[in-house]
Amino acid sequence: MPDGRSPELPLSAIVAALPPSTPFVAPEVLERRHGRAIRLRLGANESAFGPSPRAVEVMREAARKVSWYGDPESHELREALAEAHGVGVGNILVGNGIDGLLGLIARVCVQPGVTVVTSVGTYPTFGYHVLGFGGTLRSVPYDHDRIDCDGLASMAREVQARLVYLANPDNPSGTWRSAGDILRLRDQMPEPCLLALDEAYADFAPADALPPIDKSDRRIVRVRTFSKAHGLAGARVGYLIAHTDWVSAMGKIRNQFEVSRLSQLAALASLHDSEHVRRVTAAVAEGRAEYEALAGELGLSTIPSTTNFVCIDVGGEERARTLLEALLQRGVFVRMPGAPPLNRCIRVTVGRREDRALFADEFRRVLSH
Amino acid sequence: MPDGRSPELPLSAIVAALPPSTPFVAPEVLERRHGRAIRLRLGANESAFGPSPRAVEVMREAARKVSWYGDPESHELREALAEAHGVGVGNILVGNGIDGLLGLIARVCVQPGVTVVTSVGTYPTFGYHVLGFGGTLRSVPYDHDRIDCDGLASMAREVQARLVYLANPDNPSGTWRSAGDILRLRDQMPEPCLLALDEAYADFAPADALPPIDKSDRRIVRVRTFSKAHGLAGARVGYLIAHTDWVSAMGKIRNQFEVSRLSQLAALASLHDSEHVRRVTAAVAEGRAEYEALAGELGLSTIPSTTNFVCIDVGGEERARTLLEALLQRGVFVRMPGAPPLNRCIRVTVGRREDRALFADEFRRVLSH
Repeated sequence: MPDGRSPELPLSAIVAALPPSTPFVAPEVLERRHGRAIRLRLGANESAFGPSPRAVEVMREAARKVSWYGDPESHELREALAEAHGVGVGNILVGNGIDGLLGLIARVCVQPGVTVVTSVGTYPTFGYHVLGFGGTLRSVPYDHDRIDCDGLASMAREVQARLVYLANPDNPSGTWRSAGDILRLRDQMPEPCLLALDEAYADFAPADALPPIDKSDRRIVRVRTFSKAHGLAGARVGYLIAHTDWVSAMGKIRNQFEVSRLSQLAALASLHDSEHVRRVTAAVAEGRAEYEALAGELGLSTIPSTTNFVCIDVGGEERARTLLEALLQRGVFVRMPGAPPLNRCIRVTVGRREDRALFADEFRRVLSH
Repeated sequence: MPDGRSPELPLSAIVAALPPSTPFVAPEVLERRHGRAIRLRLGANESAFGPSPRAVEVMREAARKVSWYGDPESHELREALAEAHGVGVGNILVGNGIDGLLGLIARVCVQPGVTVVTSVGTYPTFGYHVLGFGGTLRSVPYDHDRIDCDGLASMAREVQARLVYLANPDNPSGTWRSAGDILRLRDQMPEPCLLALDEAYADFAPADALPPIDKSDRRIVRVRTFSKAHGLAGARVGYLIAHTDWVSAMGKIRNQFEVSRLSQLAALASLHDSEHVRRVTAAVAEGRAEYEALAGELGLSTIPSTTNFVCIDVGGEERARTLLEALLQRGVFVRMPGAPPLNRCIRVTVGRREDRALFADEFRRVLSH
């Protein structure tokens, strides 16, 4: 037997050797575990401002037609995305959220013996996929709460990495690197090596954080999502912008029909509702400022964020954990980064005004205990 | 470089060696390819009878809440499914349709060097996944238009297969094997070997086709779907019933958040609307009889079906291909099986009464040319 460990199940060696793990504990899981409803859901960076009304409308209209499979090529959505980004339809792949696309990226690049470089404590689903395909993960610490681009490049060269991951703006810190930093990282990577650039929070980012899109560049694959500013997290639609060679490689193995029919329609409608995204990003900027003011008022600092969440520095991991637990006891779901130096913080998603007021009350209360 | 073939892209050896392939050409792709709208969609075994009105209602109600991720454990749906099947929640895994679940099954079992056994020309997505994880596929011919269970068992022993696949009732033939045949196959497989039993069409099957569910049996994993009788193909919800060891193994690698929030709610509502499934299966039985009568009237025979489609024997592959093309020219989308002996047929999904009348007209017309 290839794995030599499971006498009863014919498992692949990779799966047999993997420990059980889940990148995230969901709020529903916490509710079941603690037998207590969550009143305030500010832990998963979902959009408190909801989906575009146009997206809601098309889902309602199309609900009766859900007996039909969605277009496996998501063609209309890809056409619209290609136009929006000034690339060809063949440069766009639509998939099951960024999580699903990160799995595809890992699968096309990773096999046992392949080393992948990322940051300590960054978005854990990426590492989950790398390990799930038998890869080796090497991680570089954050540099003053920001992704250490030069550190990633050095490590990539040192270990002859074939894949490097970063999110920009970054999750869980909320910080960002300039396009220049990203492109210097790309240029310093060994050959061949792919930079997986996760731009889930691109809609909230300053323009300077986003390198120009170059469809002829085989060294970068970018992933974006309708889960954040567009408010369609539950619909599972993300997309990838890349050289056609990458889209073709992933096309050989992807699940053809994985994007729901309603979700394709909702994403397309939302893409055409740029006013909604503008409203959401403005409201989020207002909310971030309010969280910063709240922290200041409480004698705490925040990490500057260009996302829809803010990390509030509470001074240490143990305090962060205690506060998280105390908030959860009161029905408030937030998360904290998983590793130093960021785990001195709690990470709070920007809610609506009334959500923020409730959070402020609850946060004051748990801090005072 | 591991693959030795792609100087520019850091691809895994498996992906680098794979030829481009897609298991199915979708009707939307045909429309774009031919520049002609499809008027009658009877090729993908979707439910012409639509989703349950209760499922439509919950999707409409929940559309505004799609900014929240769905429960990654699909807990409520799994609880309801566990109750319906008399197993534990830990015996159920909900995933992105049967296609997604077949990918998971392939991934946990298959690696280069592993041989997998199936039937020539059966549901192609399974083979797509096996090749996509580097496995070797060995196929057994159909036996008088039915899956050859004894042939599968012999081949599995001969090649020391670790995974065997069949659909029961079968797609594309529509025929079925008895529970006794399935269990004999299971008992004749080598050790260790998993039987992946695809029961997409279980709702249309005679009770004798479905082996009793035994959650202590590590040799069978069963997959079912809301895409067929439930009419939720576009929502992408399927599930797997298996020993907890298999659910745990897949839990180590699955995409945690892949099932849309609305789709989970729709599936749960549909599960509770057993009257809808009864109506659909009765209507489908009526439609099958109508297709059989139509074929008889035209001097053709059909393959006995216990699914929501019927294979009409048109006498040979070339004629089947010509008829398919002629129907498509007239905006009628049907498919044909991909390999002998079934490729002497066209495969027609049961439509509503008006769809069937239109199909009958068009079929008569193309036959007479």
